[in-house]
Amino acid sequence: MNYIGIDIGGTNLKAGLVDEMGNLLATKKIKVSQISDNDSLVWTLVSLIQDLCQATDVPIGQIASVGVGVPGTVEIHSGAILYTCNLPLQNVPLRKLFHRYLPMPLLIENDANCAALAEYHVGAGRESKRFITITLGTGIGGGIIHNGKIYHGANGMAGEVGHMSIEMGGEPCPCGRRGCWERYASATALKRLTSRVLAEHPDSILRTVVDENAGHVSGQSAFIAARRGDPVGQSICHTYIAYLADGIANLINLFQPDTLAIGGGVSNEEDKSLLLPLRREVERLTIPCSEDKRTKIVKVELGNQAGIIGAALLGKKKRV
Amino acid sequence: MNYIGIDIGGTNLKAGLVDEMGNLLATKKIKVSQISDNDSLVWTLVSLIQDLCQATDVPIGQIASVGVGVPGTVEIHSGAILYTCNLPLQNVPLRKLFHRYLPMPLLIENDANCAALAEYHVGAGRESKRFITITLGTGIGGGIIHNGKIYHGANGMAGEVGHMSIEMGGEPCPCGRRGCWERYASATALKRLTSRVLAEHPDSILRTVVDENAGHVSGQSAFIAARRGDPVGQSICHTYIAYLADGIANLINLFQPDTLAIGGGVSNEEDKSLLLPLRREVERLTIPCSEDKRTKIVKVELGNQAGIIGAALLGKKKRV
Repeated sequence: MNYIGIDIGGTNLKAGLVDEMGNLLATKKIKVSQISDNDSLVWTLVSLIQDLCQATDVPIGQIASVGVGVPGTVEIHSGAILYTCNLPLQNVPLRKLFHRYLPMPLLIENDANCAALAEYHVGAGRESKRFITITLGTGIGGGIIHNGKIYHGANGMAGEVGHMSIEMGGEPCPCGRRGCWERYASATALKRLTSRVLAEHPDSILRTVVDENAGHVSGQSAFIAARRGDPVGQSICHTYIAYLADGIANLINLFQPDTLAIGGGVSNEEDKSLLLPLRREVERLTIPCSEDKRTKIVKVELGNQAGIIGAALLGKKKRV
Repeated sequence: MNYIGIDIGGTNLKAGLVDEMGNLLATKKIKVSQISDNDSLVWTLVSLIQDLCQATDVPIGQIASVGVGVPGTVEIHSGAILYTCNLPLQNVPLRKLFHRYLPMPLLIENDANCAALAEYHVGAGRESKRFITITLGTGIGGGIIHNGKIYHGANGMAGEVGHMSIEMGGEPCPCGRRGCWERYASATALKRLTSRVLAEHPDSILRTVVDENAGHVSGQSAFIAARRGDPVGQSICHTYIAYLADGIANLINLFQPDTLAIGGGVSNEEDKSLLLPLRREVERLTIPCSEDKRTKIVKVELGNQAGIIGAALLGKKKRV
């Protein structure tokens, strides 16, 4: 059997057809701006599925299930999208609407959970039974896999790792509380920290790095400056890694996964700048245990395809 | 069938016989100071089991399993006690030693997990599928139940809720890191906070309360003073509840259990002083959701017996 995964992104709605082994055989995409109402969303899904089947010569009867990954709030039991920032729609009973056209099971899931599931099956977590991914982006997304299943909690909202406070009464967060981890350790937080320190050091190598990037501060700026020997850049990297490590240490003391994988643009920094110092700091902060029992901290492996693959594998019962 | 639970406490080793419904039919205890080596530990267990069977007229063949709750580090797969502060023993292969004398399964578990399991089966968590207990004592113990099973993580060490940092770089903790939740929200932390504030307010009602208690600061002192209208006592309670709520909000944003139960001496304070303001504060700090989906925050129900009952129920497969 084959599986179809659909990832509702900010610009594109991407769809892919995956085989039993989790291999992505074909992909199609369409601009999300073309979707204006419930009907156009469902028709888009149906036509993407037909296109993928044609492109791969897979009969539509060979599609075991369709999975949809959504950034936002979903109701997994009823298969509804309650809210997503990427579509001008709310409370879409997607499964019900979809079954007017096609009969196979349709599953809906949060996109961060889809990415975690993909990494669990065919990426960084494939040796693990208990696995966590954290994605360093605008916020910090989390996906928790426990014995092969996404950990949803009682209400489907578990795994909001970015809204774990690490600094009581600290920086205000749009979620309503203060000190949330993502205010310190997301990619956005790194940029904010870099800009703040940059303003205090107008003669630094960091300033040159930013000027070379047309004046834009990116998540890479401090790492580039640090590699050129800039103490200002090094200090920013050190601070950022300390924040990142503090939240990861909390997750490990609570969940003790076999493996924790970090993703998002920041995670592409070379190991000696990010992963190695991060591991040392996390080891210092977590409850001691022998090396063979310690959580392995690694990078995600699937990149941008994780969302589609994970959505597709929502319908798969056994491990790939 | 019946089940035997054994709780290795600081003063007593307590044993109880429990029926299929989780009812405690008989208990026995013996001073832990009488146990000096591996052999005396095993003989003590065997004789307690025989005594309990005699006292209840239950044939020893009707004991389905024996569970042992240990404060410290255990190896659940091999059934060994690696380390406990309550016995002068280390690396005790208890299951192996026990099976020289009796044939029924012997299970070993951390004592906080046993207490959580008991509350899940027959106490505050009996309506829940996902359930967390936190015990406010010298530190903060945690037990996490997921779909009827204790959440162990990859290495058996999960659920160390007390060593989640809520104040990065905050108060040093014996575990090696700083800012651990138990440095702010355990019963010990409440006493420490009370003593510190007391020293600054020698003319407060709190001072009178402490003097009435022979000069001893207890976990109740601030609550008693607050009830008598003391602004100093009220301020301590307010601060303590804020710390308690901050860690609980983290646990809810991560785990989203149906129910979270608090135990330990502090939890005996009347609801309007502790539970009601705590619920309000946690609601403010957690990601909003409709009331029917919100984690219920309650008190544990089984008190001191939870350890024995939970140890006994380690061997029970189905829910009581």
